[in-house]
Amino acid sequence: MKVNHMENSFFKQHKQLLGSAIEALQTRGYYSAYPEIPSGKIYGEHAKKDGFAAFEGYKGNEFSLDQCTTGSFLGAEHSPYGFELGVRYPEIDVDLLLQEVASACPAWRKAPIETRVGCALEILHRLNQRSFEMACAVMHTSGQGFMMAFQAGGPHAQDRGLEAVAYAYKAMLECPQNATWKKQVGREEIVTLEKSYAIVPKGIGLVIGCSTFPTWNTYPGLFASLVTGNAVVVKPHPGAILPLAITVSICQDVLQEAGFDANLVTLAADTVEQPLTADLVKRQEIKIIDYTGGTAFGDWVEENAGNATVYTEKAGVNSVIIDSVEDMRAVSGNLAFSLCLYSGQMCTTPQNIFIPKDGITTASGKISFDDVASSIVKSVDWMLSDQGRANEVLGAIQNEATATRVDTVGGEVLREGNPIEHAMFEGARTRSVKIIKSDSSHIEEFQQEMFGPIVFLIATESTEESISLASSIAKEQGAISCALYSSNEQTLEDGIDAMAQAGVPVSCNLVGSIWVNQSAAFSDFHVSGANPSGNATLSDTAFVVGRFNVVQHRIFIPQPAKVEA
Amino acid sequence: MKVNHMENSFFKQHKQLLGSAIEALQTRGYYSAYPEIPSGKIYGEHAKKDGFAAFEGYKGNEFSLDQCTTGSFLGAEHSPYGFELGVRYPEIDVDLLLQEVASACPAWRKAPIETRVGCALEILHRLNQRSFEMACAVMHTSGQGFMMAFQAGGPHAQDRGLEAVAYAYKAMLECPQNATWKKQVGREEIVTLEKSYAIVPKGIGLVIGCSTFPTWNTYPGLFASLVTGNAVVVKPHPGAILPLAITVSICQDVLQEAGFDANLVTLAADTVEQPLTADLVKRQEIKIIDYTGGTAFGDWVEENAGNATVYTEKAGVNSVIIDSVEDMRAVSGNLAFSLCLYSGQMCTTPQNIFIPKDGITTASGKISFDDVASSIVKSVDWMLSDQGRANEVLGAIQNEATATRVDTVGGEVLREGNPIEHAMFEGARTRSVKIIKSDSSHIEEFQQEMFGPIVFLIATESTEESISLASSIAKEQGAISCALYSSNEQTLEDGIDAMAQAGVPVSCNLVGSIWVNQSAAFSDFHVSGANPSGNATLSDTAFVVGRFNVVQHRIFIPQPAKVEA
Repeated sequence: MKVNHMENSFFKQHKQLLGSAIEALQTRGYYSAYPEIPSGKIYGEHAKKDGFAAFEGYKGNEFSLDQCTTGSFLGAEHSPYGFELGVRYPEIDVDLLLQEVASACPAWRKAPIETRVGCALEILHRLNQRSFEMACAVMHTSGQGFMMAFQAGGPHAQDRGLEAVAYAYKAMLECPQNATWKKQVGREEIVTLEKSYAIVPKGIGLVIGCSTFPTWNTYPGLFASLVTGNAVVVKPHPGAILPLAITVSICQDVLQEAGFDANLVTLAADTVEQPLTADLVKRQEIKIIDYTGGTAFGDWVEENAGNATVYTEKAGVNSVIIDSVEDMRAVSGNLAFSLCLYSGQMCTTPQNIFIPKDGITTASGKISFDDVASSIVKSVDWMLSDQGRANEVLGAIQNEATATRVDTVGGEVLREGNPIEHAMFEGARTRSVKIIKSDSSHIEEFQQEMFGPIVFLIATESTEESISLASSIAKEQGAISCALYSSNEQTLEDGIDAMAQAGVPVSCNLVGSIWVNQSAAFSDFHVSGANPSGNATLSDTAFVVGRFNVVQHRIFIPQPAKVEA
Repeated sequence: MKVNHMENSFFKQHKQLLGSAIEALQTRGYYSAYPEIPSGKIYGEHAKKDGFAAFEGYKGNEFSLDQCTTGSFLGAEHSPYGFELGVRYPEIDVDLLLQEVASACPAWRKAPIETRVGCALEILHRLNQRSFEMACAVMHTSGQGFMMAFQAGGPHAQDRGLEAVAYAYKAMLECPQNATWKKQVGREEIVTLEKSYAIVPKGIGLVIGCSTFPTWNTYPGLFASLVTGNAVVVKPHPGAILPLAITVSICQDVLQEAGFDANLVTLAADTVEQPLTADLVKRQEIKIIDYTGGTAFGDWVEENAGNATVYTEKAGVNSVIIDSVEDMRAVSGNLAFSLCLYSGQMCTTPQNIFIPKDGITTASGKISFDDVASSIVKSVDWMLSDQGRANEVLGAIQNEATATRVDTVGGEVLREGNPIEHAMFEGARTRSVKIIKSDSSHIEEFQQEMFGPIVFLIATESTEESISLASSIAKEQGAISCALYSSNEQTLEDGIDAMAQAGVPVSCNLVGSIWVNQSAAFSDFHVSGANPSGNATLSDTAFVVGRFNVVQHRIFIPQPAKVEA
């Protein structure tokens, strides 16, 4: 190993930020370390141009990484905006890769905690500097609009990464590194033991990324495993490799500058035709698995991970419960953005909107179920009435299967989900938000996840039934978000309690510039871990403590011979 | 639910103790909350007499509990000291019991954290007061000698319980209960959310006890699950029910005094002929499982627990590595006590003693392998030469299968493990410590766990080979303790590092009144969780955070209308 003291300067350089992050996760008010505005004033005059140029430079070329590869390249990413990316990534051989990774581990495991944490903070810093480049990569793999790709793929993802580093650092410091244990065991005999407590990482972590939020959902697991002393194999979704290839490349740069082997963070790119994930999950060298993606494969991962610790973020069926509102237009305006944003492809997007069949009360009197439904449809219509706004808000559909689902889902359609032409990318795969009317006697229509821009407006007997349906579906299928609108204190309390029992965080009476699908690092726990939508949360102490063990040793210190007076 | 404010007084009464306990687990020096000396001066003049009388009172009678039962009774405990206990415990019906337990849960889950913690601390206090009674119950189920049964079954177990309560309390307080989140989202728009974070327990925990340490190994899981808001079903080993029946009875008393349903902590007693454990493990109502016991069934529990969080403490093959010593007699005297204590039935008892075939260096010169072996054999002989001392140190053999193993294990026997007559209990099932000579080319003799008073003295090529064998066996079979004797700094470091990688805590150069099989609450982590001997440790943060989730909600606070100046 090269002798290099960059590691210490990395920690010193970012120590203050780490302190603020640890403070933030304990107070849980608003905190963000990385600016979310894609502005030249913040990121530098040339940042945007450089970022776009870097992205253009990747297209059609081989992506170089400093890791164990077979020498061949692969990749078949297609932008949801209608063109081939043509980037080709190093192919790996699982046996050879895991051997190289294993031999990179001892130096990293033996490095001081602060060295590892310093490297992680430096990686996050460099990721932040390259947020425009990352925005392009995320946009043209996930199909997100540019602004969202910048924010969720860049600074918000970096915040989630920092949050995981902060939790992990705090957890590693919880046990002292040394202690002196003295016990009086007889009139004149005192036993003294010098004890030491070592952080022993599990070994190699596997992080399985998804196609819709390739960085935001991957960084917590990646950074939590890395700083606790593990190596990390990053397995991107075959449709969204580039954002994680850039990430791995930055990790390798920093690790090498600090004197470590680049194989500590590696990319395991694959294709739909020749997938690697199942093979990696079953390998006994893999001791930690972070998975984000569909429920069926997530369940398979949980069952086939052997003795690996598994953290999953799967899917669910999210609800909105409308009981009573101050101002229906403000509510439907708020909901419309939540429904349209990224064409409903967020794991926090509402699917089922429960409304009492006899209508609801508002500050200006009672309104009928149909009035509520029509207000929501109109607000979505308005949101998508301007092509530029529609393109930016909806983005594109990541996966053809989602588009097909929108096209084929039946029922009493209140609003069609037809494609909307894209002003800049004529080949973009788009769909509008499809809204379907249903009622509580047709639970088979809406009790399953219908991923994508598909919304059910469901007439119920009462708000009590709305709460009961939302919570029972969440217990059965999982749920990640829930919006509840009520001006009645008891109804809020009942809804919050029922959903808490189903492991679902509730957002109450949101209007204005805050939406149910938003989850803020350092304040909101994303996925509770308490229902089938996932067994972990981003992030908390439980998310980090399974990545290492504390192994102690104790040394007997002989008692000094008694000196006679 | 009865209105009762005992809970608050419980917390107030024990708050200072809790504070000291939390302090202790962070500094990890010597700390104990419950006195380990079975003295009338500490426990009260009549404590011993009352405790023995209480034990006599149980014999041959029905044990009454305030829980859901079928009305029938069962039980077939036989004291390893040679008599039937004849205690009969309430029989349960799993379906009915789990229904009753579930209906007891909501009030407990909704109780303030301090109420639950207060109840746990009061339970520990009352357990402590009844330590003599518990000592008899532990002695006559596990076979431990009286002093050990008092200490390990009483105050040391209570310390382990308190430690778990302290970790759980700390973990529950880590996230604030409320936070205000304010974000500037426009020149004049500030979004304000009032956020609340609720501790949501998993539901019902199952704690599966073992026959050798029915309380010490059970209290951490019992108390960790209980204070985090779960109900607990206690499933004792059919051969060691009484200590846990007493424990459950005290839990029920305190819970009822605080106004809760006694079914929050229930006893699920069974018999060898009609076991309940597998049925309970597979029930989907069970969300947390704590298991202590043999490896084979522990592996089955891990595989069949469904979505329950599982914490296991299984078994392993413990090693002593002798490289060089100051004074062989001091070392063999220390080892002899470790080998004899409770007839080697501790999960921390050494099994394999690795000694270089060419002998070792001591302060008074080089001694041969045979000299080392003979020093150990002589020290064991001396330890067991006095009948009273032998009876107290060895105790009795809990299980007939262990006695049979001692009788049948073959090899080059240096010391026989024949029965030793018991001065007080003529029917006691006893065995002495059997010592067998082996060498590193016969790994098949000693690479498996040989539970009980069976010790192998193994000649190796070198200390390097000793370390390599000890660590590879630990990785394969698990190990819970390791003693290393060396006066060479590098050898200590190499041994500690190799064993740390195998997840084994190492005790170095122990002589005098401190033994490798001791594990002190608040300072030593028992089982590392990092090898096949178990996936959890007693206790750390990881041991408690899987027992609850934090589920938040957030309420939108409208911005006050702008007042014009």
